[in-house]
Amino acid sequence: MTNDYRAEIIAVGTELLRGEITDTNSGYLATQLPLVGIELTRITTAGDNLEQLSETLQQALERVNIVLITGGLGPTEDDLTRESIAAVIDEVPEVNPELEAELRRLFQHMGREMPSHNIKQAWLIPSAESLKNPLGTAPGWWVNKKGKTVVAMPGPPREMTAMWANEVKPRLKAILTNRVILARSVKTYGVPEAEVAELVQPFFETDNPSLGIYAKPDGIQLRLIAYGDDAEKLLDDGEARLYEIFGTRIWGKEEEKLEGLIAGWLTQSGLTLAVMEDATGGLISSILTRLPESERFLRGGMIVRADDIKVNCGIPESLIKQYGAISPEVAEVMALAVREQFSADIGLSTSGVMQNTGSKGNRPGLTYVGIADMHSVKTWAHNFSRFREYSGQREAIGALFRLRQRLAETGVINI
Amino acid sequence: MTNDYRAEIIAVGTELLRGEITDTNSGYLATQLPLVGIELTRITTAGDNLEQLSETLQQALERVNIVLITGGLGPTEDDLTRESIAAVIDEVPEVNPELEAELRRLFQHMGREMPSHNIKQAWLIPSAESLKNPLGTAPGWWVNKKGKTVVAMPGPPREMTAMWANEVKPRLKAILTNRVILARSVKTYGVPEAEVAELVQPFFETDNPSLGIYAKPDGIQLRLIAYGDDAEKLLDDGEARLYEIFGTRIWGKEEEKLEGLIAGWLTQSGLTLAVMEDATGGLISSILTRLPESERFLRGGMIVRADDIKVNCGIPESLIKQYGAISPEVAEVMALAVREQFSADIGLSTSGVMQNTGSKGNRPGLTYVGIADMHSVKTWAHNFSRFREYSGQREAIGALFRLRQRLAETGVINI
Repeated sequence: MTNDYRAEIIAVGTELLRGEITDTNSGYLATQLPLVGIELTRITTAGDNLEQLSETLQQALERVNIVLITGGLGPTEDDLTRESIAAVIDEVPEVNPELEAELRRLFQHMGREMPSHNIKQAWLIPSAESLKNPLGTAPGWWVNKKGKTVVAMPGPPREMTAMWANEVKPRLKAILTNRVILARSVKTYGVPEAEVAELVQPFFETDNPSLGIYAKPDGIQLRLIAYGDDAEKLLDDGEARLYEIFGTRIWGKEEEKLEGLIAGWLTQSGLTLAVMEDATGGLISSILTRLPESERFLRGGMIVRADDIKVNCGIPESLIKQYGAISPEVAEVMALAVREQFSADIGLSTSGVMQNTGSKGNRPGLTYVGIADMHSVKTWAHNFSRFREYSGQREAIGALFRLRQRLAETGVINI
Repeated sequence: MTNDYRAEIIAVGTELLRGEITDTNSGYLATQLPLVGIELTRITTAGDNLEQLSETLQQALERVNIVLITGGLGPTEDDLTRESIAAVIDEVPEVNPELEAELRRLFQHMGREMPSHNIKQAWLIPSAESLKNPLGTAPGWWVNKKGKTVVAMPGPPREMTAMWANEVKPRLKAILTNRVILARSVKTYGVPEAEVAELVQPFFETDNPSLGIYAKPDGIQLRLIAYGDDAEKLLDDGEARLYEIFGTRIWGKEEEKLEGLIAGWLTQSGLTLAVMEDATGGLISSILTRLPESERFLRGGMIVRADDIKVNCGIPESLIKQYGAISPEVAEVMALAVREQFSADIGLSTSGVMQNTGSKGNRPGLTYVGIADMHSVKTWAHNFSRFREYSGQREAIGALFRLRQRLAETGVINI
C-alpha cells in the first residue's frame, strides 16, 4: 500500500481516559477500514481538551492523509472536535441555516425547547460537508482540504456505526476509486489459533490477498482481503486453499452464527428441539431463545441441578448412584428423557459442572453432551476448563457443534 | 493534580490496528490508574514498527513522566517494545544471566527446547528492572531514568492484569508516596444515567473527592476517589451524600454483583430457588449457575416456550386461553408451579418475548416477572425493549432485582 491509503483514528473523550466508557468504536473501525483498502496506522485516545486535540490532529495530518475522529460532537463546552478541526485547518465555523432548521425540527419533534448551546451542532466550516445522523442530534463532518480528509463522527457506537455505513464508507470508497477491494470470511471450529496460524502461514504471506485471523468464542475466523482488478479471482483461489487446509472444520461464512445456522436447519427440516442442562445451566436455551425462529423449533428446556430434581425429571436414581451424576450414562438418559417429555424430535443434554465450581466429585470443566434423535442416542466428553471465565459459553457452543455434527451424520444437512 | 501524576499508555500491536484483537488492556488500566492517583492523559495504539514505536514513546516522554506500554514483549522479530525503549533512552540491551536461566528452566518445565529467538525475553538494559510474569515467558520491564518511568507489560490481558496487580501497582504507589489515594464504589439500580448525573452534579464538582459514573448492565456505578491525609473522611462524607441522594436505590458496594449477593442471602438463610423462564429462555438460571454456591440454593429450572409445554408444566390451558401466555396471571401460576414441582422455597418466573421476536401478539420487550414464596405470589410488568440487543440480559437482571425486593419485603434481608 502507498501512503495514500493510510489513516489514523482519534477517539475523543475524557471519559475514555477515566475508564468510564470503553472505546468500542476504534476496534470496529479497525475491522472496517481494510474493507475499503485503508491501512490503519495509529489510534489515539485524547481528552476533551482543545489544545491536546488540535495537537493530536495536527500531528496525525502530518503523517497520513485520512483522519477519522469519533466523539466530541455533543452540544456542551467539553465537546471540542469541531473547534479543533477548525483551528487546525484554519477556518471559522458558522451556523448553517439548513442544519439549524433541521436541529430545531428535531427538538420540536421531541417536544423539547432547544437549549441555546445546542446551536453548535448546526455549525459548518467552508471545507466541511455535513453527514446525516438519523439516530442523534449531532451531524458528522466530512472535511476535505489540500488533499487531506478529516471525518468527524459521533461517539455513541450506535450513531457512529450507522454513520460509518451510510455516509462515510461510501464516500471513502468513492475517493479511493482506483482500488477494488473485496473481502470474504470463513469460520473454523476445533482448531487451536496457533495451529491455524501455522497451517495458513506458508500460503498467505502476501498482502494480496491478505489474511486476518480473529479468535472468537465460536472458533477462529479467517478473513481474506484482496484488491485490484483480479480481486475476485484472488479471493476464490484463497478460499479454495482454505477449504483444502481446513475441510469440514470450516462451518460458516461471513457473518453466519452457529445458532443462526442451527435455527435455519431445524426450521427448514421441521424438526423440534428440547434441552436438559446441568453444566450449562440454561445457557444453551438462552442462546437459542434470542433467535426469533426459536419459537418454531425450541419446545423448551429443563435445568436440572440437584440430583433429586434429576430423578423427578426422569433420570433413574439407580443410574446416578451407579455412574455418578456426571457421566455419559446420565447424559444419555437426560437427552432421551427431555426428548420424550417435551415431545421433541431431538433431545440435547449437558451433564457436568462449570469450571469455577468443582464439587460433585468430578473434574471441573469436564462435561458430557448427549443427543437423542429418531435414530439413536450419542454422548461425547468435553473439557473447556482451560478457558476459565468462558468455560460455560464454550461448553454451550461445543454442545451446539455436536448438534450440527449429528444433523450431518443423520442426513438432515450436508456439510 | 500536578504534571507529576500524569501518564500515557501505549498499546503495541499491528493486530490491534487490524482489528484482529480488541485492546481491553487500556480500558482496564484507565480504571486502575486513578486508584494510584495517576491521571491518564492519552492512549496511543501503535503497530509493530520500531520507528513508529520509538517516535511514539519519545513524544509521550516529552509530555509526561510515566508511560505504560502493553504488548510487544513476545519472542519474535515483530515484538519491538524492548528495542524501542532501549533506543529512546539510549541504552544497549544485554542478556541477563538470571533471566536466561529462568527462561531455560521454564522451557524445560514445558518439555520443549527453547527457540533461539526467545533469548530476547531475557534481555535487560542498565536502567531496567525485571517484572515477574508467572503466567507467561515474557517478563516485564520497570525502567527509571532521569525522573521518567517507563513500564512494559505483556499484551495478553491475563498476564498484564496479574503483572499490574502484583508488580506495577505497588511500585507506582511507592514512588507516589506523598499521595494517599482511596476509592469507594456504590451501585445504583433503577435510575437512568442522565438522572444520576443531574442528581450528583451539584455536590461533586470538585476533584477531591472526584466522582466517576459508570453505566453497567446492573445499573449505574458511582466511584469516589479521594486523596490527601483526610481522604478517608472525604470518602465517608461523599458516600453519605450518595446515600442521601439515592437511598435504597443503592444496592451494592465495590465489586459486589447482584447474583453474588442473592447467592449469599439464599445460602445464609437456607432458602432454595427454582426458575420457570419463557422470556429469558434460561438466562436467569445460567447467570446463577456460574456461581459455585448455586449448587446449594438453585434446585433447577424450566424453560417453557411452546404453549403446550406450559400446559405440560402445570399451567392450565384455560388460563392461557383466557389471559394469553404473556400475562400477569400466567406469570403468577408459573412461579407457583415451579416452586411446587421443584420443591423450592421460592419460585421465580418470567413470561413474555424478547425484543427481537415480537410474535405471540404482545408488545416485544414486555415481560411479566412472578415470584411465589411461603407468603404469597406477586407479579410485576417490565419493559426493557429500549435496550435492544441486551433486552434479555436486562430482563434477567430486572427479575433478580425483584427477587431482592421480595427478600427485603419478607424480612429475609435488610436493605
